[in-house]
Amino acid sequence: MGSVQHLNALTENTIMALRTVLGPGPFALHEPVFNGNESAYLEECINSTYVSSVGPFVDHFELDLEEYTGAKHAIATVNGTAALHVALLLAGVEPDDEVLIPSLSFVATANAVSYCGAVPHFIDCNESTLGLDATALREWLLAATEKISGFTTNRATGRRIRAIVPMHTFGHPCDIHEILVVAEEFNLALVEDAAESLGSWYQGKHAGTFGLLGALSFNGNKIITTGGGGAILTDNPELAQRAKYLTTTAKVTHRWSYMHDEIGFNYRLPNINAALGCAQLEQLPEFLASKRRLFHLYSDAFSGLDGARIFQEPVDRASNYWLQTLILTQEDALQRDAILEISNDSGVMTRPTWTLLHKLPPYLNSPRAPLPVSESLEMRIINLPSSAGLA
Amino acid sequence: MGSVQHLNALTENTIMALRTVLGPGPFALHEPVFNGNESAYLEECINSTYVSSVGPFVDHFELDLEEYTGAKHAIATVNGTAALHVALLLAGVEPDDEVLIPSLSFVATANAVSYCGAVPHFIDCNESTLGLDATALREWLLAATEKISGFTTNRATGRRIRAIVPMHTFGHPCDIHEILVVAEEFNLALVEDAAESLGSWYQGKHAGTFGLLGALSFNGNKIITTGGGGAILTDNPELAQRAKYLTTTAKVTHRWSYMHDEIGFNYRLPNINAALGCAQLEQLPEFLASKRRLFHLYSDAFSGLDGARIFQEPVDRASNYWLQTLILTQEDALQRDAILEISNDSGVMTRPTWTLLHKLPPYLNSPRAPLPVSESLEMRIINLPSSAGLA
Repeated sequence: MGSVQHLNALTENTIMALRTVLGPGPFALHEPVFNGNESAYLEECINSTYVSSVGPFVDHFELDLEEYTGAKHAIATVNGTAALHVALLLAGVEPDDEVLIPSLSFVATANAVSYCGAVPHFIDCNESTLGLDATALREWLLAATEKISGFTTNRATGRRIRAIVPMHTFGHPCDIHEILVVAEEFNLALVEDAAESLGSWYQGKHAGTFGLLGALSFNGNKIITTGGGGAILTDNPELAQRAKYLTTTAKVTHRWSYMHDEIGFNYRLPNINAALGCAQLEQLPEFLASKRRLFHLYSDAFSGLDGARIFQEPVDRASNYWLQTLILTQEDALQRDAILEISNDSGVMTRPTWTLLHKLPPYLNSPRAPLPVSESLEMRIINLPSSAGLA
Repeated sequence: MGSVQHLNALTENTIMALRTVLGPGPFALHEPVFNGNESAYLEECINSTYVSSVGPFVDHFELDLEEYTGAKHAIATVNGTAALHVALLLAGVEPDDEVLIPSLSFVATANAVSYCGAVPHFIDCNESTLGLDATALREWLLAATEKISGFTTNRATGRRIRAIVPMHTFGHPCDIHEILVVAEEFNLALVEDAAESLGSWYQGKHAGTFGLLGALSFNGNKIITTGGGGAILTDNPELAQRAKYLTTTAKVTHRWSYMHDEIGFNYRLPNINAALGCAQLEQLPEFLASKRRLFHLYSDAFSGLDGARIFQEPVDRASNYWLQTLILTQEDALQRDAILEISNDSGVMTRPTWTLLHKLPPYLNSPRAPLPVSESLEMRIINLPSSAGLA
């Protein structure tokens, strides 16, 4: 760690705990692991000449995702943002609607709403799940909305609130059952942002399969990667068919003619990226086991530490532990930046959570509920090196 | 060809000419060729663990594209549609603007306009280039628009016409110099849809480098492929920087913090797709030579044929001959479907051109100039098997 002087005890102990778990050497926040059939499948893909939008690996990958998650239908997409965008359109989100999303999320959650011409409406999260707080959500909707023609309407803006997008933060399933009940009460379509939660389960049911539609991501930093990629999950056959249609330029099937009967998207996952995904998915059980071991190592190393704790999966849930998370106490929140600076300076990549979405310039004027828990957590979360290869 | 009876002479002669050039066996319309370093680079990419949004192959591919095309800046994107979408935003296209595009184009040209919240406005093309007709364009603008506050305004709709998007059809450079002159006269930003024209030149200058910005595509059916991919070309350093920024979620550079100061897009090209692109670009000269040989073979085989001719690159231009094109005479246009049916039935994939964009349901109400040449060409174009490996 070099000869850093005058370190606060928490900062110093955090760095020591990190080194105890990780050992020497630099560590990325999250690196993929390629120990399986990646090269073989890529070679097979090249030899077939099917590298692009159509090909057997896309079909294979979609079937594997269906089998793994239990979703009746999985539609591979070019990335998780594209999956969420189309899922929102299919959930009926229209221009000038509002969509309820957590302020504590990656910017893609809000951007996908914007791409529909709709407006994100920010809701607070819960300290014990890091996801949407169902109680705060319900109280806010009772206070700030009214039903007009069957639709929940924001009293302040007059806009219809069409959907709600819970996100399973860092892989930990949120209180999805309670949120579903609120969604039903207020006639909101539920679309799950499950970008971070492949391999996460709530009472034996996979994240992303509770709502009308769910969106997965296989970006390079996710638990499995296709380079860039994503998928839409749904049990509804009509929505699945529409999802495939809209993500493949809305082309009407014909032997040779090119006819498109609505405005679709070039959101296909190329076959070569799907080949990578097939190989990665085969290794998911190992990745999950490794991440769970890493959680226990971190948990033990930080167990005696005053001022910080390693975040543990909520009850009834099996998290994929995608990103390991240190949570500082309120009193020690001011140490966050020192810990970030010293760990990164010494080659151990750590990072704070995302800047809360309601603080980003494009979303400063978006409607929002009170966000005290999100505001507090933003100052206290530090993500730690989490690659599957670390334990 | 089987025992098809009562064939029209043109249909029969076309099928014979195709078999003379191609020989027996089934033939796709356009297949990629992987004879270079594809496997080696993919292996290198996997071993580096950098398969996703950041990585040396992306940088390498962008530099290779700059060197090859002569554009000062190339920004790799997840596909050509994404490249065109962001290029239009950077050209200043805003919601409720109109954008002039050819009706004879793939749907992505119109969709990219729609993604900006703008409206495509269809212009006719020229029989000798298959691209926008500069004379018809100027006459239409003189008749249908007026300048208001310096901007060309559609008199019928009252909307500002902000940009024009010429497309280099099947790889053949359009009359880009003449179109540039009209664009300047009417204060239109010129964005080139060069999706089909990597390797095409107009008087020694590469397609896509004439306008403010250009968009390339490396979809699986293009002259080189990255599985799915595209690039934005521009000589303007500020636009290049903004292009990189907007295609990478508009994230403000920082060691660890996640701050996004506008609504960006997840439009990065993954490194693994760029690896494929680097290997493919190395083979582009061979692909170009092969396609030119194929053009001459088709041209010879069809030279004695009444009723149809093989489309040849316009003067002063070197086309990449991406898709070989048979053009029927007006008198023989009715044979188009018979030729398509019999060739496809016998395993030789041919196709008509795209349904004209102004006839697609989402664009039925879009403004348009008279489109007699497009209407005529639509009934007379047949694309022939064009893969680089065929000659």
